[in-house]
Amino acid sequence: MTDQLLNERELDFLLYELLDTTALLERSRYAEHDRAVFDATLRTAHGIAAEYFAPHNQKGDHEEPTFDGERVRLIPETKRAWDAFAEAGFLAAHHDGADGGLQLPEVILRASMAYFNAANIATVAYSFLTIGSANLVKSFASDNLRERFLPAMLDGRSSGTMALTEPGQGSALGDLRTTARPAADGSYRIFGQKMFISGGDHDLTENIVHMVLARIEGAPAGTKGISLFLVPKFLVDADGNPSERNDVALAGLLHKMGYRNTTSTVLNFGEQDGAIGYLVGEANKGLSYMFQMMNEARIGVALGASVLAYQSFVYALDYARERPQGRLPGAKDPLAPQVRIVEHADVRRMLLQQKVYAEGSLALCLYASSLFEDAHTAPTAEERQDAGELLDLLIPMVKSYPSRYGVIASDIGIQVLGGSGYIREYPLEQFYRDNRLNPIHEGTEGIHGLDLLGRKLGQRDGAGFRQFLALTHSAIEASHTDARCADLGAALGVALNHLQQATTALREQVAADANLGLANATSYLDLFGRVVVGWLWLRMAGIASRALQTGATGSEADFYHGKLQAARYFMDWELAPTQALTRLLIQGNRVSFDMQDRWF
Amino acid sequence: MTDQLLNERELDFLLYELLDTTALLERSRYAEHDRAVFDATLRTAHGIAAEYFAPHNQKGDHEEPTFDGERVRLIPETKRAWDAFAEAGFLAAHHDGADGGLQLPEVILRASMAYFNAANIATVAYSFLTIGSANLVKSFASDNLRERFLPAMLDGRSSGTMALTEPGQGSALGDLRTTARPAADGSYRIFGQKMFISGGDHDLTENIVHMVLARIEGAPAGTKGISLFLVPKFLVDADGNPSERNDVALAGLLHKMGYRNTTSTVLNFGEQDGAIGYLVGEANKGLSYMFQMMNEARIGVALGASVLAYQSFVYALDYARERPQGRLPGAKDPLAPQVRIVEHADVRRMLLQQKVYAEGSLALCLYASSLFEDAHTAPTAEERQDAGELLDLLIPMVKSYPSRYGVIASDIGIQVLGGSGYIREYPLEQFYRDNRLNPIHEGTEGIHGLDLLGRKLGQRDGAGFRQFLALTHSAIEASHTDARCADLGAALGVALNHLQQATTALREQVAADANLGLANATSYLDLFGRVVVGWLWLRMAGIASRALQTGATGSEADFYHGKLQAARYFMDWELAPTQALTRLLIQGNRVSFDMQDRWF
Repeated sequence: MTDQLLNERELDFLLYELLDTTALLERSRYAEHDRAVFDATLRTAHGIAAEYFAPHNQKGDHEEPTFDGERVRLIPETKRAWDAFAEAGFLAAHHDGADGGLQLPEVILRASMAYFNAANIATVAYSFLTIGSANLVKSFASDNLRERFLPAMLDGRSSGTMALTEPGQGSALGDLRTTARPAADGSYRIFGQKMFISGGDHDLTENIVHMVLARIEGAPAGTKGISLFLVPKFLVDADGNPSERNDVALAGLLHKMGYRNTTSTVLNFGEQDGAIGYLVGEANKGLSYMFQMMNEARIGVALGASVLAYQSFVYALDYARERPQGRLPGAKDPLAPQVRIVEHADVRRMLLQQKVYAEGSLALCLYASSLFEDAHTAPTAEERQDAGELLDLLIPMVKSYPSRYGVIASDIGIQVLGGSGYIREYPLEQFYRDNRLNPIHEGTEGIHGLDLLGRKLGQRDGAGFRQFLALTHSAIEASHTDARCADLGAALGVALNHLQQATTALREQVAADANLGLANATSYLDLFGRVVVGWLWLRMAGIASRALQTGATGSEADFYHGKLQAARYFMDWELAPTQALTRLLIQGNRVSFDMQDRWF
Repeated sequence: MTDQLLNERELDFLLYELLDTTALLERSRYAEHDRAVFDATLRTAHGIAAEYFAPHNQKGDHEEPTFDGERVRLIPETKRAWDAFAEAGFLAAHHDGADGGLQLPEVILRASMAYFNAANIATVAYSFLTIGSANLVKSFASDNLRERFLPAMLDGRSSGTMALTEPGQGSALGDLRTTARPAADGSYRIFGQKMFISGGDHDLTENIVHMVLARIEGAPAGTKGISLFLVPKFLVDADGNPSERNDVALAGLLHKMGYRNTTSTVLNFGEQDGAIGYLVGEANKGLSYMFQMMNEARIGVALGASVLAYQSFVYALDYARERPQGRLPGAKDPLAPQVRIVEHADVRRMLLQQKVYAEGSLALCLYASSLFEDAHTAPTAEERQDAGELLDLLIPMVKSYPSRYGVIASDIGIQVLGGSGYIREYPLEQFYRDNRLNPIHEGTEGIHGLDLLGRKLGQRDGAGFRQFLALTHSAIEASHTDARCADLGAALGVALNHLQQATTALREQVAADANLGLANATSYLDLFGRVVVGWLWLRMAGIASRALQTGATGSEADFYHGKLQAARYFMDWELAPTQALTRLLIQGNRVSFDMQDRWF
């Protein structure tokens, strides 16, 4: 079995052949780096992931965190992994050098995170959440808050959480009931209960900074009255050193089917006099701050899903290459040696399906990271705006496609292994269990479908969608002159045409009746996701074709042939349903809409 | 939340409206029964399932069986459930009255099993396996073996297992390596290791009867040299009382992701002088005996998958009816009350998808049971033969469709509950984990695809397929005159036409080149499965339409409207991919076939 966490060749292909990551070196922010720095960063991530994260991935699943009413305990390997991650500077990797960061591009940080996700997605979740909440503090908190809280979050003394969900609301944030009462000193007293808060308590750090959404007393109802607060587990002095305990109590741990080494908590704020919280940014703008950070979090979740899919794929592939079983249909001699199961066409079908989901999703997430980077550091304002608009449009697919199809890739991995896939003596069933959270947190498919069709498509008069059409048309056009890719491009062209027809029809339907028009939004999201990933596969096929054209040989040629064959699989099988789907969308199929509760 | 294990109305619909189960009363074998006996049997099953099985379903998952090197221990509730099941006569329910059985039809036994599966699929697995192995003993063992072993298997003193799989072979039974050496007394000494043997050891019964496939020394290689042996854990005296321990040792337990209260064992036969085994039937015919019982086992596994899908559906439905979250797209007032999530069209889409999978699969399994019954007890030889031929043809879909789509229904249930679906405080994630075994045991999809396309279709010159075509055509024709169903029938007609085209093309492809022609067999299996279940949905819609026509009102009308709307969902969304699938099959798509191992 492989001990690779991720195939370096694959990552190189994505970063340097599909994406032009070295071009970032021309930007002033990265002028002091070179490709060697990027590669060294990835090697460091790979090394730490292999040494400190991977070895306890299964143990953390079997011996999940416990709470004795006083203290949460994790297996000690978790703390060593946290420390190694922090000491290597990954918590601050994308922050400015002046703030103690490594000033690395987003896409290199994400690619580094891919190694940690591959090694142990539950343990690295503490870091993932801390990076996200530190970004909130950095972007929106006052200088005073930043100075007191941020340094500890960047060097690993403090972790962070995002405390949004409550028992009574998950997807509908506007209904949250946690309240904030202004105190005389300008701070607030927070009262309420938060649920499903990942990393909400643990023994890894001397402090935990909760980024809490709450409603200031008297604020408007709905999303317009939500503010963001920084609520530390321990209050800190002027230098940021933890002092007395704040009024934040762990009510209990939730027991998940996967991600088990990440605590999932119910937190009570203000059981006594109120938890002391500090307003971040302006009152009633909390949700907009959260949304500004959400693209990043959604790419991050999707990347985790992609990486678990990838691990499921490579493990199944290794198994299929080693496991002898049966003979080919044509072979009748029972004394002939058995073949390895990868020689059965149906097993290759499953592996191809895993490959297109896993590698397509990885490509999508790293591409999205590059857009995120461009939105912040591209040379011209126009380029930054374009990148931001395109990313905003694509985010529903970026979050949903890897999450949905990543879980399927993990599920297929179980099937490839057969009975062995189903037992805990092999890692596949944990990959599935870990991966199953990803289509839920950071927005379900249903939510992203509504966001796409009800909001994103129309933003800035459809500028993002026009950009996507132009990019895809140009990839299709480029394929015309490439004998290996022309029919792949033609197939994508058909699907793109379907997407355009469905988009036009659905936008009219939504305009006429939002409730009815949005009823099939999730199916539209799926259609769009297939086309986006199809576009990436066409681009990857084009790169592979050129490499073969210019003389790739041996294992390099195999690598590129694999990309071409996977692209073909995608166009033939994964784009096959777009016609029927489009017909249903255009007709405004009413079956789900018309279904009555009492008929179930 | 509901405490129902299965909706009685649903089961009534399937048994007495879709199927004509009361017609069985006209057969001499069941002449002494009446409908009240059937209903009382189902009520008894429901009651015992609720009292003895359901309460420890979660506990058995959390506190799985342990092995201390000497003894296997299960939570004590398991034994009480086993005893209650046995005492009520369910182990012998389908056996003749003369043998101490209840002489009940297969379909009533299966419907009874549905309650137990719903309550606790892991605990009832011991009974399920015992019923299957007792059937083998009854059908093929000598009078002497039957007399010594069968009574204890029918009254619960002994359980049974099916010991086929070995570490080196799963799907390819012909390669098994367990050997049998003839002994002077006519018995055999068995040597070898068996793996994944469910119920292979436990503390529920005073004895365990293993039905073991092994090769007699010198027998032909491959499937033609496999014999069936009865190998008891404890040897028995002439009256069947257990005496000394046989040379069968538990090497260890496997730790599954679900079905945890069913022990999954590695068994060593013959670590000392050889395990004493008794040949069942004739030498070298073991596999054919096993195959004769397999239809029953496959229907049983599929039923378990269907029931877990159904439980996932009803639990998600109950949750969706109680959980308030968000507002409809058109509602802008944040102070308006939240709606229950069943009011969101996208949630209804997920519930409809669960409903068509779960109820369609239940219908398929009970229909298959009725064919099984007809194959054995229909009045004329011709009817028996027809039923047997049709069942043989359909078995690949009967096994695979509920297993595949049942798991998806459980997965969707997690999604409906969101974060709550993902935590062990709710039952959905266990439903998924339990259900995930079903697409693997009793033949994977890949195996059934090959069986269907490579063997079943051509059996008896395609008689089974012609029967299926005739039945489906007649249902479509019947729909023409029913305004509520005409378009449903038309949609099925299109899909049936696709199936016919694909079948003709693929049979030619297989004849030309078996390896290539069978490469997409699993996709053909999926196509066929959709059409079979579509046919059942059309029949159910027709029944519903007639009931509404003849004046069903209130909750009865709701029930039938639900059937009609679900049928519509199936025809619109689940049959949508058949055209594209058929195109790929007819073209003999080569992508998986051509993929090279080294390209991955």
